[in-house]
Amino acid sequence: MFTFKPDFTTGIIGFGAFGQLIANHLAPHTRLKLCDPAHDVMQLANGQNFANTAIGEIAKCDFIILAVPVDQIRPTCQALNPHLLPGSTVIDVGSVKLEPLQIMQAELPDFTPIVGTHPLFGPQSAKDGIENLQIAICPTHGPHHRLIATFVKRLFKLRPIQISAADHDKEAATVQGLTHLIATVLIEMDLPETRIKTASFDLLNQAINMVRDDAPCVLAAIEQANPYAAEIRDTFFTTANRIRQRLQPDPLLVGNNTSENGPCTTIP
Amino acid sequence: MFTFKPDFTTGIIGFGAFGQLIANHLAPHTRLKLCDPAHDVMQLANGQNFANTAIGEIAKCDFIILAVPVDQIRPTCQALNPHLLPGSTVIDVGSVKLEPLQIMQAELPDFTPIVGTHPLFGPQSAKDGIENLQIAICPTHGPHHRLIATFVKRLFKLRPIQISAADHDKEAATVQGLTHLIATVLIEMDLPETRIKTASFDLLNQAINMVRDDAPCVLAAIEQANPYAAEIRDTFFTTANRIRQRLQPDPLLVGNNTSENGPCTTIP
Repeated sequence: MFTFKPDFTTGIIGFGAFGQLIANHLAPHTRLKLCDPAHDVMQLANGQNFANTAIGEIAKCDFIILAVPVDQIRPTCQALNPHLLPGSTVIDVGSVKLEPLQIMQAELPDFTPIVGTHPLFGPQSAKDGIENLQIAICPTHGPHHRLIATFVKRLFKLRPIQISAADHDKEAATVQGLTHLIATVLIEMDLPETRIKTASFDLLNQAINMVRDDAPCVLAAIEQANPYAAEIRDTFFTTANRIRQRLQPDPLLVGNNTSENGPCTTIP
Repeated sequence: MFTFKPDFTTGIIGFGAFGQLIANHLAPHTRLKLCDPAHDVMQLANGQNFANTAIGEIAKCDFIILAVPVDQIRPTCQALNPHLLPGSTVIDVGSVKLEPLQIMQAELPDFTPIVGTHPLFGPQSAKDGIENLQIAICPTHGPHHRLIATFVKRLFKLRPIQISAADHDKEAATVQGLTHLIATVLIEMDLPETRIKTASFDLLNQAINMVRDDAPCVLAAIEQANPYAAEIRDTFFTTANRIRQRLQPDPLLVGNNTSENGPCTTIP
């Protein structure tokens, strides 16, 4: 059974929106180091300041979390590789899992345990706390994924879902792919404010607002790095176009008040 | 100032899902008569049974509510017309307002006050009560729309929104048109159950489930009888297709890990 050293260190690479979210939650539980060349000083919500730590120092942490865009995982692993020593675990938090895990396995030393995770929340959905939210954890060789699952369950009351990287990406193509696709369309339509509202439209807007401020690389990861996303997207567009055809008024039927869409009450 | 006669009568024509919802809420407040040739006996949630009342009898009620599909409003008005007497008000509850109001004005006697309403809820969104939900009320000549607004506000704590029929239809094309369009696409995709969930996908599903069981004529009214719906739908599809193009991986860029979608943190 794994236990945590009392003074274990965690290095987070990337201080974007998600890196900050992780840093804020982890800070009370670990000796934290942050690496993001875009910042000289990184400030947490509690006011704590962190200097930028060099990648060689981050490599010596017990846990190294890659909070970088999916397309930056390879260069980040290449930069970490020469500095890694046995005993460090590398964890990613990307919105897809097949590609990051393949890259980490290819680019990191054989002695480095790897865990693929996908916290199923973002700055918006986590703003009232992360308790009971899900984190997908994809097992690789070795028992380290169980350590991470126990850790997030005990400390943050997250709900870890153990799932293969392929199954994760298949499901995420629906869950995230469709939501972000629809949100992107509606945001780009720049809908006017309306006086009349319905419960379902309010829910739709709440869904959109959850992902509205996601960084563009999040959409890129979800829609492009996920190998199943294109298929779900194609099904969405094919279905949408079929419905579009069905809804176009047939010019031959203009003036004919009979609904083609029965059964609805016919009166009198 | 209008007041209600202590024993005022209300006739509801149409005992579909929405007619039933109205009947259940009105029954305690009025002498109710129901007309729907599809039913010999109509039972309310409180167990009360109603025989089918002939249209000639319904025409004598103080208030006559047309809870029929939009394409049935004309024949219903034509059937009512010869029986109507001064003193009765005719109210519709359709999801569009321009077309039903035009038809009612054309087909009902000049002495009959007409009020166009659109209760902005359905069986799903009303299942925990209708308090604080909206009802759009479109004024025509005369003060009768104010009477209806006062009535639904006092008795049901609904929030009446006074709005012109044209403005209603413009806004409904977005609020209802888009929601039902997206819901129809997702329902027709028959998405598999997933183990992983996100808050935004849950909200999207809640929105869909609100309209999932709406009768086909509701979609027809919202998408086809609303003169502004086709334009919103076209904008949706044009925007969606533009985003689709943008998301297709460009074969010339395969193997190039640079995101086109910056700015995202670049490490190291």
